[in-house]
Amino acid sequence: MYTAIGYAAQSPTSPLAPMQFQRRSPRADDVALDILYCGVCHSDIHQARNEWGIAVYPLMPGHEIIGRVTAVGADVSAYQVGDLVGVGCMVDSCRQCRACQSDLEQYCEEGPTMTYATPDRVDGSNTMGGYSSSIVVSEHFVVRIPEGLDPASAAPILCAGITTYSPLKHHGVGPGHKVGVLGMGGLGHMGIKLAKALGAEVTLFTRSQAKAEEARRQGADHVIVSTDAEQMRAAAGRFDFLLDTIPVPHDLNPYLETLTFDGVHILVGLIEPVEPPVHAANLVMKRRVLAGSLIGGIAETQEVLDFCAEHNITCDIEMLDIRNINEAYERMIAGDVKYRFVIDMATLQK
Amino acid sequence: MYTAIGYAAQSPTSPLAPMQFQRRSPRADDVALDILYCGVCHSDIHQARNEWGIAVYPLMPGHEIIGRVTAVGADVSAYQVGDLVGVGCMVDSCRQCRACQSDLEQYCEEGPTMTYATPDRVDGSNTMGGYSSSIVVSEHFVVRIPEGLDPASAAPILCAGITTYSPLKHHGVGPGHKVGVLGMGGLGHMGIKLAKALGAEVTLFTRSQAKAEEARRQGADHVIVSTDAEQMRAAAGRFDFLLDTIPVPHDLNPYLETLTFDGVHILVGLIEPVEPPVHAANLVMKRRVLAGSLIGGIAETQEVLDFCAEHNITCDIEMLDIRNINEAYERMIAGDVKYRFVIDMATLQK
Repeated sequence: MYTAIGYAAQSPTSPLAPMQFQRRSPRADDVALDILYCGVCHSDIHQARNEWGIAVYPLMPGHEIIGRVTAVGADVSAYQVGDLVGVGCMVDSCRQCRACQSDLEQYCEEGPTMTYATPDRVDGSNTMGGYSSSIVVSEHFVVRIPEGLDPASAAPILCAGITTYSPLKHHGVGPGHKVGVLGMGGLGHMGIKLAKALGAEVTLFTRSQAKAEEARRQGADHVIVSTDAEQMRAAAGRFDFLLDTIPVPHDLNPYLETLTFDGVHILVGLIEPVEPPVHAANLVMKRRVLAGSLIGGIAETQEVLDFCAEHNITCDIEMLDIRNINEAYERMIAGDVKYRFVIDMATLQK
Repeated sequence: MYTAIGYAAQSPTSPLAPMQFQRRSPRADDVALDILYCGVCHSDIHQARNEWGIAVYPLMPGHEIIGRVTAVGADVSAYQVGDLVGVGCMVDSCRQCRACQSDLEQYCEEGPTMTYATPDRVDGSNTMGGYSSSIVVSEHFVVRIPEGLDPASAAPILCAGITTYSPLKHHGVGPGHKVGVLGMGGLGHMGIKLAKALGAEVTLFTRSQAKAEEARRQGADHVIVSTDAEQMRAAAGRFDFLLDTIPVPHDLNPYLETLTFDGVHILVGLIEPVEPPVHAANLVMKRRVLAGSLIGGIAETQEVLDFCAEHNITCDIEMLDIRNINEAYERMIAGDVKYRFVIDMATLQK
């Protein structure tokens, strides 16, 4: 065991604060890393405040982790001390079920072990995330950060990137397809870049005309103001895919109507009840599909990192001093960040 | 033009009653047939009573039509006088759009011409359905009734059969798959037979234990009583596909939870808002899909007829004297038919 420090919430109502804790000594298949950067995901806030009702305290968030390997267990073959690596949303899974065997650990039938606030499968301890000085993770759940990718800007690829890349790949998005991206936050701006790099023609749907210029800067070919009924009507039946990153309940029906027959509306930002309700006719009459997708498997997380390196894609980030994490949470809730805070972990030592 | 007789509603509140009307003389690409049998679909009731708000009167229902060719236009090549043929839900479409070019006339971008209560694309007249002595239809929208298929029992294949077959084929249902069929009416009992013939392991979900024996007689391997929370819990994560034939709003969430990751819930019986709402987490957390499907294209309608002949599948029917059509509607609304009324059109002449 060795001592680490990090920022954790002690209860749903307490702010994040520094905390000393123990990281395990590496098991035979473990990689230990010193954390350099950690992205701040909106789900960190939900969990710190127990808004999903599944928090375990102390709760140390962080699942967009970039670090350098400091030690490896006896059986580790893929990584060595000094390697620049990443850890995303999961740190373990059953590794036996059909999902795990299909490189889809996120759908593990027993449930994956998440990077924080989940019992470790070996010793039952509460997993602690990446708002910390170090982490110890089985090598199967470690990915390599490719050469040429800025490490800080790459951090959010481990969640926001894979969450948008995985469904685009799964549904076969490519050249000749018209893709609509709903919302332009952390997920949405990555969705624009990735769909564009996959060869699709990309349209941002946004409530605000003010975002049009910025959307084009991100790579969007077109912008549709979703509150403009005329623009929405003109888009009827035009899209092959919608990547819906909106994190709050919203009316899907006007968007479904913009899909062609066999069009696919992919939810990646929502876990609440879909209200107002979907009209079944909007699916049935055009064989449309309402799909969901959750992050991505480990092999595919490596794939999106390599894809981003190849296409020179990173997340737009604002570097954060960890001592300002609570203020950053408030700014995220207000939508005041373009597009992801990334903690510079050097500030932890100050 | 020649005189035909049939049963039509003159208003949303008037019962169906005999009516004399004119059928057009065959155009160059038309086939004229004398109707032998016509299935009675629940949508006939919705339309006769204008429950969807799109009825045009006089409204003569009927889109599960079996008849014998009596005349063909000059350019007709596929059919000749005396052939046993069928006409389903559509009698025309634009034939030019991507959907039509893909043999998916039901998703025609201009909207297909339905067999009744839709303006004919050439002369604008209101189409009149199969509760009648004859019909005249472009040969592209005519299908051949294969040898060995009982003509009366085959009639509902033209709607109930294709509606359930098309999504099973589209989503690749086959050996090794576990398919749940929701509801056992006209659509559901065909869904059981077709999914079974495609090689799947089939389970009927029903509210009533009383239907278990009958479901097994139809070919279901298992029955789950959907109102039994324990049976539903035991089914969690087990199914690859759900074919949902329930024609009224119902809670999809308990069913979605019975799907494995990547499982597909297919709506074929519902066009209303999905209430209570779907929980997005039920899609997102397991990459499940909520899909819709509408009847099927003409080529696939021929395919399902041939498939049914090959696998000795027909619809379970109760033969109906057309003079009892209004009573039959009331019995259908009460769920008192196993599983489809088929009008013996000889009774029209009595």
